[in-house]
Amino acid sequence: MKNENSYTDCTLRVRYAETDQMGVAYHGNYLIWFEVGRSEFCRQHGFSYQEMEQTTQRFLRVAQVQCRYLAPLQYDAEFVVRTQLKALRRRIVTFGYQLIDFDSKKVYARGETIHVVTDENGRPRSFPKRFEHLLIDGRGSES
Amino acid sequence: MKNENSYTDCTLRVRYAETDQMGVAYHGNYLIWFEVGRSEFCRQHGFSYQEMEQTTQRFLRVAQVQCRYLAPLQYDAEFVVRTQLKALRRRIVTFGYQLIDFDSKKVYARGETIHVVTDENGRPRSFPKRFEHLLIDGRGSES
Amino acid sequence: MKNENSYTDCTLRVRYAETDQMGVAYHGNYLIWFEVGRSEFCRQHGFSYQEMEQTTQRFLRVAQVQCRYLAPLQYDAEFVVRTQLKALRRRIVTFGYQLIDFDSKKVYARGETIHVVTDENGRPRSFPKRFEHLLIDGRGSES
Amino acid sequence: MKNENSYTDCTLRVRYAETDQMGVAYHGNYLIWFEVGRSEFCRQHGFSYQEMEQTTQRFLRVAQVQCRYLAPLQYDAEFVVRTQLKALRRRIVTFGYQLIDFDSKKVYARGETIHVVTDENGRPRSFPKRFEHLLIDGRGSES
Repeated sequence: MKNENSYTDCTLRVRYAETDQMGVAYHGNYLIWFEVGRSEFCRQHGFSYQEMEQTTQRFLRVAQVQCRYLAPLQYDAEFVVRTQLKALRRRIVTFGYQLIDFDSKKVYARGETIHVVTDENGRPRSFPKRFEHLLIDGRGSES
Repeated sequence: MKNENSYTDCTLRVRYAETDQMGVAYHGNYLIWFEVGRSEFCRQHGFSYQEMEQTTQRFLRVAQVQCRYLAPLQYDAEFVVRTQLKALRRRIVTFGYQLIDFDSKKVYARGETIHVVTDENGRPRSFPKRFEHLLIDGRGSES
Repeated sequence: MKNENSYTDCTLRVRYAETDQMGVAYHGNYLIWFEVGRSEFCRQHGFSYQEMEQTTQRFLRVAQVQCRYLAPLQYDAEFVVRTQLKALRRRIVTFGYQLIDFDSKKVYARGETIHVVTDENGRPRSFPKRFEHLLIDGRGSES
Repeated sequence: MKNENSYTDCTLRVRYAETDQMGVAYHGNYLIWFEVGRSEFCRQHGFSYQEMEQTTQRFLRVAQVQCRYLAPLQYDAEFVVRTQLKALRRRIVTFGYQLIDFDSKKVYARGETIHVVTDENGRPRSFPKRFEHLLIDGRGSES
């Protein structure tokens, strides 16, 4: 069964390249960190997104993103990307994200990405069954 | 008077660095293009954002972004970033964006960024009067 | 005949995203600007690099880069990327770059990239004849 | 005593954002990975580069970089950044880098960065003594 509350955490550090002259992380990088979280979510659920792309020629094109920035992130700060599967329909997948401080649980940002499943030419397709199961239930579902 | 319908166009090209292995522009770069559009909007309104930061120590921190991706952008494709001031309150500024093909008027993406005016320590402040006037009326207002 | 001294200029501006907390452009971005210069060099010589990749399945993989940073570049500064073809052998192409201030001719940086011509699997190949001619002589050679 | 052969390893994964349409990691990102390696080198030697910048107002401006690309890196590939202090003179620091596969020891790239120690205005300065000791001998030197 799908556990609506399950999430995957991965830990990152702000790179110097990711700062801007305001002295904090540039806001555009948050979308990249969401992507890292998404990738880790797949890995924790038993598959690599790379493998899905290569074996099924299905892609999760980003159709919509939004992000709210609650507190700035400094260079070298360590933070957690917490990723959650929010919705999975036949051709649309929604992920939710929080960037948090692991110790204090302070939330730096919250965001969401909506993806359309497409083939290599950008045409909408169904989510490949095998990977859909993994995304929902994870590795544990096979036991 | 503020012209609600006024906008600033600037033309960009997709860089190789901005593509990903899906063969199109990576979605995160759209936020950077919005920033370029915002910067050009200021310039067309008679000031540089850099100048505002340096002379007033006021910053437009990004508080929220959203973007909808309507059609992919290929490497080397030329496109227009159309930037519009959507709202300006004492401490909050909202910009809207469209990425469009100049000839066909096809829209590649639509987005919005909401900014809080802060000082160098991140504390909310009022928008500096001189630049507020420019942002709303532009250079023409002085004539 | 190849004109050893010919070069292509294109004008860029430092983006906010390209700055870091030192308050100047992050050094890694210079390689991206070189790429933009290279792309413009091809265009000025009568072809798009995209077209070459797509019609011949030949790629210019970067084998080596170097860059010397002579003066920092500020956010919003306008500068010229001057690109030159330094050497063209059967499977290896070398480009040289200067980032300069158009008015004062001050040089911000100098660099070089060496490329190997490969097929889509990364195997070394000869440079496609048609594009080799364009790269050396440019559009003018056809007249 | 300085151990010429000492190095610091840190493990990274290629992000989707870091790939380009050639289907491998974009060459410009290697400089960012070097920076991550450098930052980890400092941390393993008992200080954070952030701390050095903030407490001494001394910066390691990049004066020169070079990189040789030996084998491409795929999306999601895990690799090691091996960072070494190659030379430390009063105002100049040189780091060397290798990107390697931890298991096979295959080398993906080799590079070098040369830094000038400056103050906040970009003027050359001496390396702060306390951090110089740490950089050379590391935390262990205090025992």
